[in-house]
Parts: sequence; structure tokens; C-alpha cells
Amino acid sequence: MFNNFTLQNPVKVIFGKGSIAQLPKNIPANAKVMLTYGGGSIFSNGVHEQVINALTGYDVIEFGGIEANPTFETLMAAVEVARKEHVTFLLAVGGGSVLDGTKFMSVAIPFEGGDEWNNIVKRKAKYGEALPIGAVMTLPATGSEMNSIAVISKKETDEKFGMGHPLLYPQFSILDPETTYSLPKRQVANGVADAFTHVMEQYLTYPVGAEIQDRFAEGILQTLISVGQKTIANPEDYEARANLFWAATVALNGWISVGVPQDWATHQIGHELTALHGIDHARSLAIILPHLMRYKLEDKKEKMIQYALRVWELSGTDEELVEGAIQRTIDFYESLGIPTSGKAYGIGDATINEIVKRFEERGSAFGEHGDIDAKAASDILKMSIAE
Amino acid sequence: MFNNFTLQNPVKVIFGKGSIAQLPKNIPANAKVMLTYGGGSIFSNGVHEQVINALTGYDVIEFGGIEANPTFETLMAAVEVARKEHVTFLLAVGGGSVLDGTKFMSVAIPFEGGDEWNNIVKRKAKYGEALPIGAVMTLPATGSEMNSIAVISKKETDEKFGMGHPLLYPQFSILDPETTYSLPKRQVANGVADAFTHVMEQYLTYPVGAEIQDRFAEGILQTLISVGQKTIANPEDYEARANLFWAATVALNGWISVGVPQDWATHQIGHELTALHGIDHARSLAIILPHLMRYKLEDKKEKMIQYALRVWELSGTDEELVEGAIQRTIDFYESLGIPTSGKAYGIGDATINEIVKRFEERGSAFGEHGDIDAKAASDILKMSIAE
Repeated sequence: MFNNFTLQNPVKVIFGKGSIAQLPKNIPANAKVMLTYGGGSIFSNGVHEQVINALTGYDVIEFGGIEANPTFETLMAAVEVARKEHVTFLLAVGGGSVLDGTKFMSVAIPFEGGDEWNNIVKRKAKYGEALPIGAVMTLPATGSEMNSIAVISKKETDEKFGMGHPLLYPQFSILDPETTYSLPKRQVANGVADAFTHVMEQYLTYPVGAEIQDRFAEGILQTLISVGQKTIANPEDYEARANLFWAATVALNGWISVGVPQDWATHQIGHELTALHGIDHARSLAIILPHLMRYKLEDKKEKMIQYALRVWELSGTDEELVEGAIQRTIDFYESLGIPTSGKAYGIGDATINEIVKRFEERGSAFGEHGDIDAKAASDILKMSIAE
Repeated sequence: MFNNFTLQNPVKVIFGKGSIAQLPKNIPANAKVMLTYGGGSIFSNGVHEQVINALTGYDVIEFGGIEANPTFETLMAAVEVARKEHVTFLLAVGGGSVLDGTKFMSVAIPFEGGDEWNNIVKRKAKYGEALPIGAVMTLPATGSEMNSIAVISKKETDEKFGMGHPLLYPQFSILDPETTYSLPKRQVANGVADAFTHVMEQYLTYPVGAEIQDRFAEGILQTLISVGQKTIANPEDYEARANLFWAATVALNGWISVGVPQDWATHQIGHELTALHGIDHARSLAIILPHLMRYKLEDKKEKMIQYALRVWELSGTDEELVEGAIQRTIDFYESLGIPTSGKAYGIGDATINEIVKRFEERGSAFGEHGDIDAKAASDILKMSIAE
């Protein structure tokens, strides 16, 4: 049955072409701003210039080089600078990794307890306060722009953990679809696959009769199917870009997760593949989800049939619908140029054994029934390299 | 094309059975609370007792008797009491009318400029501050629980106006589907029709390629069609009640209106019918919408076809689909026991002439193209009484 829930999402979304110009309305004039960014694409696509122009008159320092799968080590270097420079406002400019890293920084900068990996990322300490964050997002994918989640990696130990807390909501996020025109095709494809999988984690569990949440989830999946290929084929299709950006945002902003069970085992196993193998986040998900669907076929049967009927508009017997659901999911990832076989990424027994060891050590158990443990993860990973 | 938009909705929604017990977590302990309510159904359905139990230890005064289509006259009496008693927190307990009225009060109580009808309802003055509002909603219908809109009527002049301002968002809204079990069938039916029409006002215009917004709107319509009858037939079906409550909330909380054109001419004409004839709000909408659909058939053709295909799953030629769209809309209202002919409500030439006069005096022009003026309203109203 429809579960009780609380929903409050305070993020101000500023959406559309030219919206970077609205920055000064949303950052206090006397702020000491730290602009954080990633590999430097914001210089080649003109976004850095737009941001700096909008921030004329502000006291701004910059910190670049935040990686995809942002690392604790890099972020702590940024935290040191921000502390020394008495930064009062963080402006993340880039994709979900930059914003995730900046969310961590917002809590770490004023934190005085030390050991930020355990205390903040692993949530051993109670969060005290956080610096305000604004974002100029340039990549539709993670949904970080409208949620309170951040995923941080540690180079030293090849670990990757998610943190979530209401203090991590950005105050505002600016999404201008035109800033995404110049993204490499691989990043666009990854973004589509990431958003698609986010929806599946919140949708493909078991039915609780939550009709709005199901319809919304199905609508996002249909939109991603409709615009994914279009965006890759025609990078300057504003409408497709806008739909993709908004789809990625609402895929993980709390609107479809209220009152329903959630899975997230695909992400938990996928995070290990990224941590150990450096596989792109979205690709790690594409390796796991279709095999997890087959592994949990009985538990997920009702929702798989609904998914086949409503999202893919298939018809047939229950068995045909379930098979069709799995095959269409595989085909969708592959149509984006993303292989779904673990073999394609060189995953072998050594990786699987390490993941099993980690899950056992941590006593991990994920999924909507809490039964995706070390053994289940191992079975799913073995299925992924069997093909 | 997908329009630029800004979205920020700070309301905390607390949803599910037993959630009234969460009141003390959400109201400051030292608050002077004014509990506002309507006709007294909160006494017979146990909600008043639940609220008072939850507020043990608080300083609470009560103001009852806020009408359906809350009147300026009644509300100003409540404002006087609240000013005298130095109320610091308003808790609306009831349906959308109670909450709408309380929203007006929240701005009126601290307002010192006088003439609250013109200054606050008609927005002639700049809003200064507002008292914080919480809501315990007991009627799925208006969506007031998660938006910043209020509609206020004036007895003296038979007028009805909508006001909207970010200060009018409640801080929190508690929605317990069980509190709706005892609603009269007529109110439930009206709520379903009201929510349905809210979606149609934001959806049935012209396409701008906003796929998420369209899919979400269609999903709400499908949910209302699915649970409307079920709720009326079996009042204690928790799942149907929960779906109806959540559908009514998301029908008018800003999620489906971002970036798309909106109509609202049905509401504007309907408000006049309520003001002049005392027709239930939802019923006034059912009189107008189907005839407005036929009147604007050419302008709305593309969306009507999409609506017929996706929401009603019809097939046929474009003409058949458009006809089917209108007929299914009529059938839906009628299936809820709500007549769609103006004749059934005794509307005649005198009413139409008065509405034309008002529209002319105000220079009214509504609809997504701004062309529903006095003449158009007259034509639509005449169509509604021709059958």
C-alpha cells in the first residue's frame, strides 16, 4: 500500500536559454564566491565567460579540476582554499560531479571535527551547518541540481559512497539547454542512461497502487526514449535538449519516489565497478540493471509487465512481456552505444571477488526487499559476464 | 517552443494516515495559534479532536464558519480577532476554501494600509509580510495545500477573485486520506471534477513540445479517471483516497504548468457563475469546459487529438478524435453526477448579460491566446444553455 511520506524540495530551478544572466538576482551582493568546476569544458563552451560576466562586481575565486566521480582528495584541497579565503557562497558550474563535490564541500568547509571522509561522507558526525550553494548545470544526467544527494569517491581506497541530507539542497540551479549543445556524444548518452536508470530504481520494484508516481515515472522513461537518440543525432535541437534536461532533473528530485518502495541495488553494485574499474557511472548501471531484472524476475514481475505494456507498448503473454521488458531495456542502452555485458568492460572474477568481499565486510543488503547481498551481487555480476 | 520558467515550491507535504500527530514538530512551541475551519464537519469526523490532541500545550484560539467560496466579509471578522489576540500562526483545518481564506488572512492580519479588498485581494498594494500558515487538509480538490493561490469572494458585490503570491505558500500541509472517508459524495465528485479541470487548464492549449509536462498532465487525468468513481463507490478505499488526494495536489502545484501555455478561461467564466448563481465551483467548470472545447476546437485541435489518443485511448480520424475528446469529457463530468448543461442550473440570458457587462467593464481577455473576451464568453455560455 501507498506509504506515508514527507516531501519538501526547496530548490529554485531557473530553466531556459539565457538564464545564466539571472545569477546576480540569486547570490548576495557581498558574497565571497568560490566558483567550482571540472575539466575545463566551461571555457571552450562559453559558459565560464557567461558566468563571469553575470558576476561582474562580485568577489570571486575559482577552483577547477574536480573529476568525474569527484574525489575526496581533490575536494579537500578545495576545502582548504575556501577556508583560508573565507568563502561564503559556493557556485558549482558544470555537471553532476562538480555539484556533488561542491555539496560535500559546503558541509566540510565549516566543519571543525576533522576526518571528513568518515564524519561527513560516511555520515558518522551530525551535520552542523552548510555554506549556501548555487549551480549552473551543463550536463543533464545525475539530477543533482534538484536533490540533496552527493556521491563522493576516495582514491586512496578505491571507495565510492553516497551521502544525503537536507542541507545539501542547492539554493538554486540554473539549467540552460543551450549550454549542453557542445557535450561529447558519449556524455550525452551516459546522461540519458543515468537518468533512465534513476527512474527504474524508483519504479521497477513491486506495485503499491501509487498511480501518480507510476504514471510520472513512465512519462519520464517515455520522454527519455523519445529524446535520447534525437539529442545525440541533432545536438542543437533545443526542444530535445530541454526535454532531456528536465527529464534528468525530475528523474531524481523526489517527485516519483514519494510513497513507493525503492531498489538502488543497481547503483550500489555499479558504484563498486566504477570505484574498482573506472567504468563511467552510467555504463556501470547498464551492466547491472538488465541482469538484475532477470535475477529478480519473480519479485519484479508485476511491475515488469506494467513497464512492458505502458512504456514499451508491448503485448503478449506475461512471459513474453517480461522477456520483452528485459530485451527492450538492453536494446535501449545499446542503442545509446552503451554495452550491457560485463565482458565488454573487462570485468572478471577478480573484480567480482573484491566486490563480494566488500559487501560481506560491510554487511551490505540492498534492493526493495533488502536481499541483494554479497551472494546476490556475485550472481548478478556473473550473469553479466556470462554472455 | 518550451518556454523559460522558474520553479520553487517550498511547501512541506506530510502525507498519510496518522500524520496529524506530526503537527507539534511543525509549529513553534511558543506560537499563538488560530485554528480556522469551515462548517463544522471537522467536529463530526474526528479531525478537530485529533488536531486539538496534537496541539496539547499550545495556546490556541479558534475561528469557524468560513464558507465554501470564502467571503471577504467573514474573513475580515477573523482578521479582527487575530489582530486583537496577537495571533502568530494560522492553522487551516478543512478544505480549499478554509485554506484559501486563511491565506488571505495571513497577509491581511499584519497589513496596515486598510481597504483589504482592493489592496490585498485585487493586489493593488505591494504585499509586506505574512503570518506563517500550516494546513490540515480534509478535502482533495483545489490543490491549495501546495500552491500560493487563493480565491476570495465578496458578498456585497457578488464578486470572486483569485490572488497569487509566493507569500501565500503554506509552510506545511498535512494530508491524511482517512480524514476524507466521511465526505459527502457530492463534495468528492466536485473535488474530482475540480482537479480534472485544473489539469485541463494547463494542458489543453497548443503543443510546445514539453514532453514531461504533457506526460505528467496525462498521468494525473488518467489517475483521476481511474480513482474518481472508485472513491465515490467505496468511501473507505484507502488506496483510491490516497491517489485522489495526491492527484488533486499535483494538479495545481506548479509541476505541470512550467514552460507551457495556460488557458484558465473556464475558471474565469466559472467564477462569475459561482459569484452570481452560487453554483458549486467544480460544477461551474463542468458547464464551461466542454463548450469552450467546442468553441476553440480549431485552436486546441492538436492537443485535443493527443488527449483523445493518450488519455482516453481512442482511435479514428482527427475529426472523430476531437469529437471523442469532447464527448468523453462531458461523459466524465456526468458520470460524477455533475450536469454539463447550463440549463440544468437555471442559467439564462440575464446571467449571461451580467457576465458580458462585467467582462466588458474590466476589459477581460483570458485563455492561452488572450482572446476569450466578453463576446467569446457570451458565445460559450449561450452554447451551454442551447442543449
